Amino acid sequence: MRRPHIGVCLGLVIGVMAVGYARARDTGAQTSTIEGNGYLIRQAALVLTMDPNLGAGGILGQLEDADVLLVGDHIAAVGVHLSAPSGVHVIDGRGMIVMPGFVDTHDHLWQSLIRGCATDDDLNGWLSRCTSSLSTHPVSEADAYAGVRLSTAGLIETGVTTVVDWSAPFGTPFIRGNVRALTDAKLRFAFAMFGSASDGADIVAIKAEFIDPNPLATLQVATHPAPFFATHVAEATAIAKALGVKLHVHVLENLRQVAEDPLGILQAAGAFALGRDLYTAHSIHLSDANIATLAGLGASVSHQPLSNMRLASGIMRYPDIQAAGIRIGLGLDGGTNDTTDLFNNMRAAVGLQRAKALDAHASPTVAEVLRAATMGGAETLDMESQIGSLTPGKQADVIVIDTQALNFAPVLRPVAQLVFNGQPQNVK
Amino acid sequence: MRRPHIGVCLGLVIGVMAVGYARARDTGAQTSTIEGNGYLIRQAALVLTMDPNLGAGGILGQLEDADVLLVGDHIAAVGVHLSAPSGVHVIDGRGMIVMPGFVDTHDHLWQSLIRGCATDDDLNGWLSRCTSSLSTHPVSEADAYAGVRLSTAGLIETGVTTVVDWSAPFGTPFIRGNVRALTDAKLRFAFAMFGSASDGADIVAIKAEFIDPNPLATLQVATHPAPFFATHVAEATAIAKALGVKLHVHVLENLRQVAEDPLGILQAAGAFALGRDLYTAHSIHLSDANIATLAGLGASVSHQPLSNMRLASGIMRYPDIQAAGIRIGLGLDGGTNDTTDLFNNMRAAVGLQRAKALDAHASPTVAEVLRAATMGGAETLDMESQIGSLTPGKQADVIVIDTQALNFAPVLRPVAQLVFNGQPQNVK
Repeated sequence: MRRPHIGVCLGLVIGVMAVGYARARDTGAQTSTIEGNGYLIRQAALVLTMDPNLGAGGILGQLEDADVLLVGDHIAAVGVHLSAPSGVHVIDGRGMIVMPGFVDTHDHLWQSLIRGCATDDDLNGWLSRCTSSLSTHPVSEADAYAGVRLSTAGLIETGVTTVVDWSAPFGTPFIRGNVRALTDAKLRFAFAMFGSASDGADIVAIKAEFIDPNPLATLQVATHPAPFFATHVAEATAIAKALGVKLHVHVLENLRQVAEDPLGILQAAGAFALGRDLYTAHSIHLSDANIATLAGLGASVSHQPLSNMRLASGIMRYPDIQAAGIRIGLGLDGGTNDTTDLFNNMRAAVGLQRAKALDAHASPTVAEVLRAATMGGAETLDMESQIGSLTPGKQADVIVIDTQALNFAPVLRPVAQLVFNGQPQNVK
Repeated sequence: MRRPHIGVCLGLVIGVMAVGYARARDTGAQTSTIEGNGYLIRQAALVLTMDPNLGAGGILGQLEDADVLLVGDHIAAVGVHLSAPSGVHVIDGRGMIVMPGFVDTHDHLWQSLIRGCATDDDLNGWLSRCTSSLSTHPVSEADAYAGVRLSTAGLIETGVTTVVDWSAPFGTPFIRGNVRALTDAKLRFAFAMFGSASDGADIVAIKAEFIDPNPLATLQVATHPAPFFATHVAEATAIAKALGVKLHVHVLENLRQVAEDPLGILQAAGAFALGRDLYTAHSIHLSDANIATLAGLGASVSHQPLSNMRLASGIMRYPDIQAAGIRIGLGLDGGTNDTTDLFNNMRAAVGLQRAKALDAHASPTVAEVLRAATMGGAETLDMESQIGSLTPGKQADVIVIDTQALNFAPVLRPVAQLVFNGQPQNVK
């Protein structure tokens, strides 16, 4: 069994709080002294900045044989032949790809507790067999904590640095175990909390205790736009509006949900007024009119291709949704995905569209899927000014991928190989 | 980077030639002394024998907390509480899944040399950009050797113990480098040789030098049923008939090939007379009539879902082909697959059909895909009496999968988790 490199990874991912840092925005810019902790990744074979202003390759912003300087919790400089300020730790980047950490825009981290459940069933059967009984026999705080910590260890293995965790309606102890584990994992996260009046789970209280004091944390409000949840949708919409946060919902994941008109339920609850703060996961069985509606609102879509395959949910209209100008991020989706393999998720996003359309140019392309997994995900969260690219000044959410591995050799076309050869074991 | 456990894996996979061994065919059977080398895998959490007569779970033949005794190069016994003959090496199987090694029924091992090539193109573009120039600027013997050895190391990592390697029309030095590397990898293999009169590559001579002396090796004859290859198809068919070996062809991988009528070309060349020895890879755009034809011949089909996604080839009619009684194996397909991840290939085989049909019961099921990856593959090769299940008397082609890993925990439904959680790093 491979030892998880959690220590190393967290060191790079989170950095430490800066006492002070020097910024250098351009290629080749230099810093001479720093205060606080610093890391210089030197001579990386490839830096995918995901900032078109910092390198070649269009949206990928590629630099070869380049350096990345991290000071405190920020990216201080990206360029070729940066000089090392005194006191920084120099990391040998030869043979490595350096890029922004992946943004997992829709997950259910507690569901590692039910891995492999009902793998012969679709969404409805899976919900019935794997989660329904948990509402009456709630997952304990300790179990929620353990499951979420297990999942976050897997996320770190596969290079995720920001995760959106859609919780569950299992009551306050569960919610507390869930958010405590997220906090302790030291990942950047958005906690999509499913609150309920009946069990006393208090979104405002959780926000005050766990989210507001944590610079890595943001809050979302979770609900489910189905007829039997209409009251909850209205309450959740009101809370999201009051707090100025996103409302995160599952929309049209299974074909049978078309008859429930989830967008109609959201509209009736006033959720369309949330505009950019409406966050719709799955969004598979959207009509042309549904796509136009979401585009008009400025809503975001989170796409879970591996889960959609496992649960026989279908193939999202990725090219049409992208063409409508809707922001798209990728998500792993918890127990219905199982593998916690971001590379596999990217491959599936690309391959599903190609297999359906018989067209190798169907979106997402290789570049588009890499962007969706990083900068695109940041945009869905309206966090693109903080994360998603290696733009100096942004947070030091950086991953290092070692291409000196059997599955990568020979490294001739590293960008394409990242998507088609990459495995979690390559993330240092 | 993870160290590849090649030594350990080969030790288990190949065993050594037996001087003599005791057979014990039934659960609980015991052997008291052995001559030659032996291994007892004791108390494996789960043994998937793939032999319905040896355990529960129908086609999976499952045993829990069970032992597997390997003597020489054969499986001597499978059962609960086997006693250890003197002199055997005892391996602690707790937390492990023991199962037959995977059979990769269609690969192009030299193509690790062109990993990541033309990832934005379909089959026709990929052939044109990545392989056409190699016919006039041939891959050298040394490069063929290196590429194939690299690929076989990846196969061993992901638990493949038998591979069918469809070579390439690059001339004798290439062929020799290819088959030498296969030989040195000590995997069980079928070499599907693409011979050519013009370059002197002599199938009969290669067979005599490399295949006949090697008990792990078998020969197939490779050709391509396209109009510009009609003469070659006829010659290759005659050679396959004369040698009594399989004719291995790509059929209807891309939609444009429907107009070429590859089955008509094979029929005109006399290849239908090969019956069970006709081996058709991909077989995506088969009509109902095509499926009936292949079923009537007793031909085999090899399925490459990851490649079919990457190259926008389409979704094979797996349920219809299986329902017609056609033998189906899975294949990784070389440079157009990239990942060398058998677990991912199984997931893709399952998920593609589900995403297309919106039906979680679409074939292959979890059990069916595990069988296709092992016993089903053996059947396509007419090697089911030697490999594909852990039936005592068969070859000791055994893999051990360590479920004590982040991506497997908690191990509640190991069979399902093998398909949906498994990663190459879990193969010991």
